[in-house]
Amino acid sequence: MMIIEKATGGITAPRGFRAAGVDAGIKAAGLDLALLVSDAPATAAAVFTTNLAKAAPVLVSREHLDRSGGVARAVVANSGCANACTGADGIRVARETAAETARLVGCPIEQVLVASTGVIGTALSLDKVQGGLSRAITQLGADQSLNAARAIMTTDRAPKQAAARLMIGDQLVTVGGMAKGAGMIEPNMATMLGFVTTDARLPQRLAEQALREAVAVTFNAITIDGECSTNDTVMLLANGLSGVTIDETTYDSFVGALRSVCLDLALAIVRGGEGATKLVTVSVTGAASEAEARQAAKAIANSLLVKTAINGGDPNWGRIVAVAGRCGVQFELSGASVTLGSILLFENGVPHDERAPQAAAYLRNDDIAINIHLGAGRAAATVWTCDLSAEYVRINADYRT
Amino acid sequence: MMIIEKATGGITAPRGFRAAGVDAGIKAAGLDLALLVSDAPATAAAVFTTNLAKAAPVLVSREHLDRSGGVARAVVANSGCANACTGADGIRVARETAAETARLVGCPIEQVLVASTGVIGTALSLDKVQGGLSRAITQLGADQSLNAARAIMTTDRAPKQAAARLMIGDQLVTVGGMAKGAGMIEPNMATMLGFVTTDARLPQRLAEQALREAVAVTFNAITIDGECSTNDTVMLLANGLSGVTIDETTYDSFVGALRSVCLDLALAIVRGGEGATKLVTVSVTGAASEAEARQAAKAIANSLLVKTAINGGDPNWGRIVAVAGRCGVQFELSGASVTLGSILLFENGVPHDERAPQAAAYLRNDDIAINIHLGAGRAAATVWTCDLSAEYVRINADYRT
Repeated sequence: MMIIEKATGGITAPRGFRAAGVDAGIKAAGLDLALLVSDAPATAAAVFTTNLAKAAPVLVSREHLDRSGGVARAVVANSGCANACTGADGIRVARETAAETARLVGCPIEQVLVASTGVIGTALSLDKVQGGLSRAITQLGADQSLNAARAIMTTDRAPKQAAARLMIGDQLVTVGGMAKGAGMIEPNMATMLGFVTTDARLPQRLAEQALREAVAVTFNAITIDGECSTNDTVMLLANGLSGVTIDETTYDSFVGALRSVCLDLALAIVRGGEGATKLVTVSVTGAASEAEARQAAKAIANSLLVKTAINGGDPNWGRIVAVAGRCGVQFELSGASVTLGSILLFENGVPHDERAPQAAAYLRNDDIAINIHLGAGRAAATVWTCDLSAEYVRINADYRT
Repeated sequence: MMIIEKATGGITAPRGFRAAGVDAGIKAAGLDLALLVSDAPATAAAVFTTNLAKAAPVLVSREHLDRSGGVARAVVANSGCANACTGADGIRVARETAAETARLVGCPIEQVLVASTGVIGTALSLDKVQGGLSRAITQLGADQSLNAARAIMTTDRAPKQAAARLMIGDQLVTVGGMAKGAGMIEPNMATMLGFVTTDARLPQRLAEQALREAVAVTFNAITIDGECSTNDTVMLLANGLSGVTIDETTYDSFVGALRSVCLDLALAIVRGGEGATKLVTVSVTGAASEAEARQAAKAIANSLLVKTAINGGDPNWGRIVAVAGRCGVQFELSGASVTLGSILLFENGVPHDERAPQAAAYLRNDDIAINIHLGAGRAAATVWTCDLSAEYVRINADYRT
């Protein structure tokens, strides 16, 4: 039997994790360097950006995971500088960051993972990172997760933490996490960073599989503006200190808890999207395949016309149908229906515009659900996004000017 | 020898075309019904939206072209109502519109083409269309192209006309055209309508090929917001009244003139994009294939981050590199370069941020050129777009509220 309940404590909620967040002077002001240390070597898995222009920390972390066979003791993440498009020098700084951390923690360099977010194309100061690390190591604590979550923020409005407890029989497993948002970044990309910890013990193969499964329906099912950055990274560290080993029989329960934490973080990112005023759940049902369902849901979630209509409280089902029609998935207009909340506005090809006032009233809510049923099969997918406001444009246009 | 020079007169610039624009009461106010008549049956070709949710006039025009074998005498286009997502009733109204026009002009029904733009999902009033047609037929004139261009406007800021003269030896051929913009529409989709006329004589096969070639690098190479509407249509009518027949030897010259008219109209659409303050030319060079060059150019032109940076005058080359990196085309970061105007900001993987102030000054211009060289081959493509302003969001959010 599986019981999952939400918990507090972020990345230090599971046993044997300590964290710190310090001001290393990388950003103009505020905490900008987070350190996460596991008391014991942890099984580690990560999902990285598919962008061809991968930042130096992405390349170095990938290399370390390969060399360690998926074992990590520490993670260092900074905000204020993405260390992307920085050539050989950027790689050197990422390596030196890991080396210094390994020395302080007392572990092999390949057991340190690194991540960065912030400005593209400017150099990350190794001096500042080293200075920050020397203070972070002294401030490590099981009660410092909030500072760590703050230290990875860029234009995020608030730190993002989540945790969940899972009872497997009478044994307790905890999952914790923190993330920073895809609200576009000072001044460059929509970097999304996520760090998830657990005191469960997992074989490396299961850790990778669990992370991939959880990310697919959470972090990879949100979109602010369709961008995918040079630095996007989600990492999972499983240190085993609960004494509970996840195997094939408890795998599904564990993934449930992992998914719960990842979803909380992912939805917090969407709610915190730049200029966002509403959380929009886009579900596509009746698709010919899950791939087509996802494709249509992403296209609708990324449509400027749909996002601006939601922002303006306009129940504009025509825009939703038109996006589905152009996005490359197969369906017949005569079999398609659109629902806002529970209000059916377009049913098997026929408009119900008499319900528009009711739908306009519904759009005053903060959480909006859009469904389009394609009538072409049985597959479904859900994607979360936010509305597009004039504020978004101001934030992304006015930086540096 | 080919000489192409710009001309005036829009769709009635070529011999034997008359037009009218009237107020049929479909829009709240202003001209909303355009009629175009050729004195002789014209070879006709058209390119329609690829959206699955095709509007009734698209379906009816496609059917008429099939039945007539590509011959047309008249085109009717209305603004204020897209006649899309309107089911069997919408088809009936589109057919009756063509029937009434055929009766007034004195031609078979299948020689009438129809187009609509405006609100999706509301019924087009046949009464209003018939009333408008009865007046339009009496106002037809070779000097009425401006009224016709006005009658197809929705949120367009200005009517869009173009024309060009082509000398083939000592023979004169004229091409004319009008279009309405992809600035999003009251209150629904970004319909793009284009109508091009010529007094050249073309075999149907060449007319289709010429239109397709011209559209590919003009109307299909612009993007305001990446949407493709239920109603997008570009039509070409060639009535032969110049006495000049286009054959394989003069085909390239003719396409040159056709492309010139289509490009003028397409760029007018981009400049008139909702909230647009700048015309942005995105060129991708050094791509592995033309398809990849086009894919990268479209991705950059549609990127909210790039478009907001241009709006804000921020020479943010990192966003351009990052979009190229995520859009699925192959290249090495170490071989990529980005130029704004003539200012090289990123060269073979190395930033030149010292040139940022110069680039920021350049971005104060109204016409901005972005180039990314991928260093992966020899293929190139150009796409035109506009910047994204807070005004765009206001226009598309605030309608109907």
